[in-house]
Amino acid sequence: MNRTAMRASQKDFENSMNQVKLLKKDPGNEVKLKLYALYKQATEGPCNMPKPGVFDLINKAKWDAWNALGSLPKEAARQNYVDLVSSLSPSLESSSQVEPGTDRKSTGFETLVVTSEDGITKIMFNRPKKKNAINTEMYHEIMRALKAASKDDSIITVLTGNGDYYSSGNDLTNFTDIPPGGVEEKAKNNAVLLREFVGCFIDFPKPLIAVVNGPAVGISVTLLGLFDAVYASDRATFHTPFSHLGQSPEGCSSYTFPKIMSPAKATEMLIFGKKLTAGEACAQGLVTEVFPDSTFQKEVWTRLKAFAKLPPNALRISKEVIRKREREKLHAVNAEECNVLQGRWLSDECTNAVVNFLSRKSKL
Amino acid sequence: MNRTAMRASQKDFENSMNQVKLLKKDPGNEVKLKLYALYKQATEGPCNMPKPGVFDLINKAKWDAWNALGSLPKEAARQNYVDLVSSLSPSLESSSQVEPGTDRKSTGFETLVVTSEDGITKIMFNRPKKKNAINTEMYHEIMRALKAASKDDSIITVLTGNGDYYSSGNDLTNFTDIPPGGVEEKAKNNAVLLREFVGCFIDFPKPLIAVVNGPAVGISVTLLGLFDAVYASDRATFHTPFSHLGQSPEGCSSYTFPKIMSPAKATEMLIFGKKLTAGEACAQGLVTEVFPDSTFQKEVWTRLKAFAKLPPNALRISKEVIRKREREKLHAVNAEECNVLQGRWLSDECTNAVVNFLSRKSKL
Amino acid sequence: MNRTAMRASQKDFENSMNQVKLLKKDPGNEVKLKLYALYKQATEGPCNMPKPGVFDLINKAKWDAWNALGSLPKEAARQNYVDLVSSLSPSLESSSQVEPGTDRKSTGFETLVVTSEDGITKIMFNRPKKKNAINTEMYHEIMRALKAASKDDSIITVLTGNGDYYSSGNDLTNFTDIPPGGVEEKAKNNAVLLREFVGCFIDFPKPLIAVVNGPAVGISVTLLGLFDAVYASDRATFHTPFSHLGQSPEGCSSYTFPKIMSPAKATEMLIFGKKLTAGEACAQGLVTEVFPDSTFQKEVWTRLKAFAKLPPNALRISKEVIRKREREKLHAVNAEECNVLQGRWLSDECTNAVVNFLSRKSKL
Repeated sequence: MNRTAMRASQKDFENSMNQVKLLKKDPGNEVKLKLYALYKQATEGPCNMPKPGVFDLINKAKWDAWNALGSLPKEAARQNYVDLVSSLSPSLESSSQVEPGTDRKSTGFETLVVTSEDGITKIMFNRPKKKNAINTEMYHEIMRALKAASKDDSIITVLTGNGDYYSSGNDLTNFTDIPPGGVEEKAKNNAVLLREFVGCFIDFPKPLIAVVNGPAVGISVTLLGLFDAVYASDRATFHTPFSHLGQSPEGCSSYTFPKIMSPAKATEMLIFGKKLTAGEACAQGLVTEVFPDSTFQKEVWTRLKAFAKLPPNALRISKEVIRKREREKLHAVNAEECNVLQGRWLSDECTNAVVNFLSRKSKL
Repeated sequence: MNRTAMRASQKDFENSMNQVKLLKKDPGNEVKLKLYALYKQATEGPCNMPKPGVFDLINKAKWDAWNALGSLPKEAARQNYVDLVSSLSPSLESSSQVEPGTDRKSTGFETLVVTSEDGITKIMFNRPKKKNAINTEMYHEIMRALKAASKDDSIITVLTGNGDYYSSGNDLTNFTDIPPGGVEEKAKNNAVLLREFVGCFIDFPKPLIAVVNGPAVGISVTLLGLFDAVYASDRATFHTPFSHLGQSPEGCSSYTFPKIMSPAKATEMLIFGKKLTAGEACAQGLVTEVFPDSTFQKEVWTRLKAFAKLPPNALRISKEVIRKREREKLHAVNAEECNVLQGRWLSDECTNAVVNFLSRKSKL
Repeated sequence: MNRTAMRASQKDFENSMNQVKLLKKDPGNEVKLKLYALYKQATEGPCNMPKPGVFDLINKAKWDAWNALGSLPKEAARQNYVDLVSSLSPSLESSSQVEPGTDRKSTGFETLVVTSEDGITKIMFNRPKKKNAINTEMYHEIMRALKAASKDDSIITVLTGNGDYYSSGNDLTNFTDIPPGGVEEKAKNNAVLLREFVGCFIDFPKPLIAVVNGPAVGISVTLLGLFDAVYASDRATFHTPFSHLGQSPEGCSSYTFPKIMSPAKATEMLIFGKKLTAGEACAQGLVTEVFPDSTFQKEVWTRLKAFAKLPPNALRISKEVIRKREREKLHAVNAEECNVLQGRWLSDECTNAVVNFLSRKSKL
């Protein structure tokens, strides 16, 4: 929001001061300090208090906040005060003009619905008739949405699915769209795309949370090992039938799953294709918590909104402390998995299994 | 099976074609493509179809299968067709002669029973009167059996025990057979043997599954961390009393167990010698699934037979993607554990504990 | 205990021989061999038996024990015999003088109670009115107590809390005691202290066990990932509200917790501040076992006393085999966590959150 051209009037300022008194929820210490500082700056100009002693914590905090505004002009402080109050009370009328929804819902996505509010950017898979299968376009759009979310002012990012499925995984019709270079080129392109796609999840800098509303298959399951929390409806299932399709694990799951579960349980899932219920996935550590489907959305979003109020830098830095130690390893695993898969996609076993799968679907 | 000297007659071929129609189970797409190709090769010779377009998946798969036979002579194709059908319907009479059981049961083992059928090589510990304790001969025989299984045409390999025990672990009488070089030489020889033995499990290339029919002790427990799946009867227990015997962990368990369980639970088992029930071992991730003893064998073998029908290359390659990342580390851990144990075997604590154990057994 | 000045009389020696016959519990093979050897040395002098054959295990063990005493004088052997018997039967009167309690309870601690008996050194947090919050003095005293325990003759070391809490973690008043160098110097000093403190846990050479008698918070929780076993009362809870305080994980938890739990469950705790019950912490692998509070102390100490009777070298060496592989990594993680925290302590988010916390406490 570019506001440099706007100027809040004294009237706006007084309205905002009244609105602060009407706030139903305590906006927290940090916001209150900022309001204090902007008020002082708007009414008295740059900080003119003597610096408090180091033991006088409260006044020191106030002084720090005011002093941090430096030589910000009174008018700008007044405007910032008005803006800050406006952001605290979206339901109240404000004299400031906001174009409705401009930063609430991103447009330009065919396969996703991306929205941002309450500090949360939500990326929703939106091909419900295809069980949210991920086609080539959707791979690209998810990457674009993640890159935007990493830079917007949201605190956490959530992935979820529209409709009955979370996602049925890689859209197998991707295999039928053969370029002029033939199947070898197709396999190579797919491997490059997959590697870039998984890399976006490895490098995502904010807390990333999956809200698994229904069955998840393949790549939509393996990627969960790269999320910071996974909340699942009890309708959700988790299935990675790679061997049945002549394929091999991706999404860093050959590394993350034996770490998350035990190797014996990871193998049963990744190699022998066992499908887990939500409860089983939670017992194995793939899922953070399971909720009854009837209250799933309500309970999860209440929790997510609370997370989004935590100090944002602490969240990002804590995630980075944990992820930093794994990042290099995860990228190496990703590269190798994609390399092996590229070979698998050209194998008889895989071709055969995919033909078989598509034949059954089309009743050939 | 060397069949180069055999030749199937036209009659055999026709019989086989009829048998295909009588198959009760769909043999799967891969087999059907192979049958198609061999039939065409046997009746028309090398592939004479124009190559189908890349979008025509079904005909492309058929063309690939036929074309892959190259210039295979019609007689050989006919013979291969007959053999393939014969392998699909073992219960039906076939005009081809098979020496009964030649590749079903390997001979030449004193301490094991090794059989191979339905794509599964089964290595069964066979010293039931000694609770399947592993003596020096058995260490060597297990290595020999694993090496053979890695090269035979089975899809998965299973270890299990004959009788009430899975295995009571290292046969402590191994310690009493002192060579002319004295106990130092004995300890060194044992460490070399143990390292080579554990190394065979680290490097085994196919899915390796333990069917734990009863109590497991010591090395037979620690090795489970190197298996791809562990199915246990509810009669099974898991016990590693290393400290009580003045010894230290082996089988890579000092690395795999803290990874499989949490460090605090691994320590309780490996250092303080806690014995786990099958249910506890499953909750800790050491066991993949527990079955009631009454239905154990039936349920497990049904599942294993299904696993053995999955695409074999996908299984091997998926296992390798997972294991590759750990192999070097596991060999280093194995070397160090054996080195430490060599020292332990010469310590007063160990000598004393083994003397104590053998004294109690012999009521001295 | 310096006993060089003491000399046991022949009478003392005969008393001790009688006491051995009155022992209610078998002192174990190792002690019996030592008694045998000291008796022989005290009555016959250096070993004069021909060395038994390698197959004669029992006599070989006796010969080894006696021969190991070398040329120890008869008087010293007699004295050692008397001391050994005395240590076996503390309830019986002995003619040897022992200053009561000298090696049972270490003095010189303000914030801890440190005792040693039955092979167990117990380090008890002793600021019950402050919920055993760890202030600067207590950090130093715990390090001193750990260093002493690593060298004393105990077999295992236990940490526990006096009163209702195990420990409420870092005493936040540590932040208010600002040195002349200002907050930057304070943050730096705290980071150096924390790194050294955590390093003591990484390097502790004997089995280290936490007896978690009540709620645990912050650093007292994260350190548990470095213990060999964690026993908890069902009153205990486990809480790491780092983000809420604008801080980030320490105690190596950014590495140990994702390994112990799954990453998704570790994040919920370390980043989103979820408080776990004892049962949840046990299911996640952070706790080895949970006991009802009413029988907690009795059951746990019975178990610990049994652990302390295991062969001490086997325990230490087994712990080292496991820890050795992680030590370098753990020190690197510790260094980085402290480095990140030093930055956090100077951030607005952290200052603000601490001010807020202390304000609420002091009703400002």
